[in-house]
Amino acid sequence: MSTPPPSAPPARRQFLRRAAAIGGATLSAAAASAATPSAAAPEAPLAIPPWTRQPGEPVLWHPYGEPSPFERHVQRRSRGGAPLPGAASSMTPLQDLFGIITPSGLVFERHHAGIPQIDPQQHRLVIHGLAQRPRIFTMDDLVRFPSVSRIHFLECSGNTGTEWAKPTSANVQLSLGLLSCCEWTGVPLSVLLDEVGVKPEVAWVLAEGADGAAMSRSIPIQKAFEDALVVYAQNGERLRPESGYPLRLFLPGFEGNMSIKWLRRLKLGTEPFMSREETAKYTDSLPDGNARQFSFLMDAKSVITRPSPGHLLQGAGFYDISGLAWSGRGRVHRVEVSVDGGRQWREARLEGPVLNRALTRFSLPWQWDGAPTVLQSRVTDESGQVQPTRNQLVQARGLNSIYHYNAIQSWRVAADGSLSNVHA
Amino acid sequence: MSTPPPSAPPARRQFLRRAAAIGGATLSAAAASAATPSAAAPEAPLAIPPWTRQPGEPVLWHPYGEPSPFERHVQRRSRGGAPLPGAASSMTPLQDLFGIITPSGLVFERHHAGIPQIDPQQHRLVIHGLAQRPRIFTMDDLVRFPSVSRIHFLECSGNTGTEWAKPTSANVQLSLGLLSCCEWTGVPLSVLLDEVGVKPEVAWVLAEGADGAAMSRSIPIQKAFEDALVVYAQNGERLRPESGYPLRLFLPGFEGNMSIKWLRRLKLGTEPFMSREETAKYTDSLPDGNARQFSFLMDAKSVITRPSPGHLLQGAGFYDISGLAWSGRGRVHRVEVSVDGGRQWREARLEGPVLNRALTRFSLPWQWDGAPTVLQSRVTDESGQVQPTRNQLVQARGLNSIYHYNAIQSWRVAADGSLSNVHA
Repeated sequence: MSTPPPSAPPARRQFLRRAAAIGGATLSAAAASAATPSAAAPEAPLAIPPWTRQPGEPVLWHPYGEPSPFERHVQRRSRGGAPLPGAASSMTPLQDLFGIITPSGLVFERHHAGIPQIDPQQHRLVIHGLAQRPRIFTMDDLVRFPSVSRIHFLECSGNTGTEWAKPTSANVQLSLGLLSCCEWTGVPLSVLLDEVGVKPEVAWVLAEGADGAAMSRSIPIQKAFEDALVVYAQNGERLRPESGYPLRLFLPGFEGNMSIKWLRRLKLGTEPFMSREETAKYTDSLPDGNARQFSFLMDAKSVITRPSPGHLLQGAGFYDISGLAWSGRGRVHRVEVSVDGGRQWREARLEGPVLNRALTRFSLPWQWDGAPTVLQSRVTDESGQVQPTRNQLVQARGLNSIYHYNAIQSWRVAADGSLSNVHA
Repeated sequence: MSTPPPSAPPARRQFLRRAAAIGGATLSAAAASAATPSAAAPEAPLAIPPWTRQPGEPVLWHPYGEPSPFERHVQRRSRGGAPLPGAASSMTPLQDLFGIITPSGLVFERHHAGIPQIDPQQHRLVIHGLAQRPRIFTMDDLVRFPSVSRIHFLECSGNTGTEWAKPTSANVQLSLGLLSCCEWTGVPLSVLLDEVGVKPEVAWVLAEGADGAAMSRSIPIQKAFEDALVVYAQNGERLRPESGYPLRLFLPGFEGNMSIKWLRRLKLGTEPFMSREETAKYTDSLPDGNARQFSFLMDAKSVITRPSPGHLLQGAGFYDISGLAWSGRGRVHRVEVSVDGGRQWREARLEGPVLNRALTRFSLPWQWDGAPTVLQSRVTDESGQVQPTRNQLVQARGLNSIYHYNAIQSWRVAADGSLSNVHA
């Protein structure tokens, strides 16, 4: 908190000089320090390590690869407390990830009746209701249509829901990990709707999953024609079972539960279908007792993922602050970072490509003086929406909500270099 | 071959109408046909399938996910014939992939002494030679530097090498599968070179791996400063062991073997170091007996991945031709597709974002009349390089080469809908 703001943003070169003083070691210094931290560190820096002295594992050791055994801690985790093992969620380890792509094995889960094991040869998509030519599609039919591929984020509307009351989540995985970003491939829903012929009076589409919950949501027909996709691939390969294999709906920028997984049915109608998951659940209670209906769009949001709780700063010096920003309304326009609890803001660098309704990686070089402080990020999207402070959000929406929390996230840095989740 | 060229490119809507006639079925027709192909097809189209009648697998069934059991055939494969299990390659199943991202578990492999199992706590990167301030970096040091993330292809210079003589490879995986594309995250090598201080006379950098082969290549210092990366993450997570965990060099657009995996050493010098892998191997023998030295850049290249050998066209009708194009010289500018063995060419649609030195997905709608024909694609990159025919390539380079084959690939379509690899 006592960090004096720098008089001017130091040049990149200066930062790198400082980084060198921290991150680098001369050959002799490293040789001297090699004995200390890791038990089996090489005696001399240019010594041949054990794995260079012998042949390694053969090609096709794993015909379908997996992470290094040294990375086993990087996995999805659950906050627990769900009533049923199949009606629960697991969260993406954002603190351990880089760039914008979420590996398919780490994409967050939210299921309502578990993960069905679907034979793609038996799976069908039915489009019916107010259609001129109702149709049933096999997976082979769908893959023959012209396809598109898009990189988009997917976020559960309940993401960060624990922050409404108190900053209870221990780290960024458990507070913001209902968030992932993949390259999705499939058929534009508009193409399929042209196939079946949408009757003029149609205003809504019911999407239903083939899971045991028959998870169902109503989609405005405008969204269905605008950019909705019927998706069968994710990050280059077929969808993973927990992400909807063999077929899911994908609604860019909308709350995740609407992108119905294991999609089996689309019914065209004139009114919203008022399914359980858009009435009893997934609505926002306002202070006056009314509920927001509907709250489809995910608002502008950002978070610093590195450093974040669980990381330990190794004393004063140079750190590259890095995080993710996104908005259901379009592209990220600007991200600002504060290293003094919101008093001063500096513009972060955005890593390209900055894509529509995709995670965007930002970074800002930071020289920590070793004093306690608070780190924050704030995004502005291309629609002009600015990520609110917690006070602004609570003022507008009260404290009865579970969903659509998008306030600025604060990480407190202690003098010992540890970080914690705070409301600041 | 007898396909008459369409008088004008049919409108998208027309194609979709035709697709409907093939790919779609009316509710009643589908109910009638449901008994035929798949044994356990639902009795009626709207019947509830078995997986909807019961709860599915729980959340965190796999804390680190894996593909559906129905996708087990999608895996890396080897052409075989390698002298040692650790000095071999495996290839990416391009015929089964979508979009531009290659899942990390399917990235092609080429090892010279197998896959070392490296403890990241013990791994070091040494930068020495003609440096002002030689340094040793730990992995923690490297991750503290400012990082960048870039989507780039990686291609082995031996990719498609079997095509020089005869079209021997059975499918696109075995002919062109030494090709992948990931989001790579790491430190620009220029940043590390600024750290150590490059002496004015330096013109080359030796990069050495920590594998049993101590795989080594010489890198021009211009490339090292231009866009070389020292990479620790791939598609959002730490590198996979077979892709260089915990650290690799990445040289965008250069032949894959130069992007040294398991990177342990960079030595600054004035001349190329003439390692085994840039003299006895990885040089191109020309017709006059001389060798090209050096051939770093991967040339402009493209291939149709769908349909390709192994796929079976289901009779005359609509198909969406889809493939990949790339160039080590920059962005893809244009892709043309021929459906009549090269007599007529039509411009394909490029799927965005079209990124520098990345795979680019192209597609073209095609109405097959059921007669035998040959499918081809031809890329032009932003430098103006046009992918050559096989005859043009052989005329320039002779038949003694193993590496850098980038000629137009031809797939013959037979009347029964099967495809095969031909020189046409």
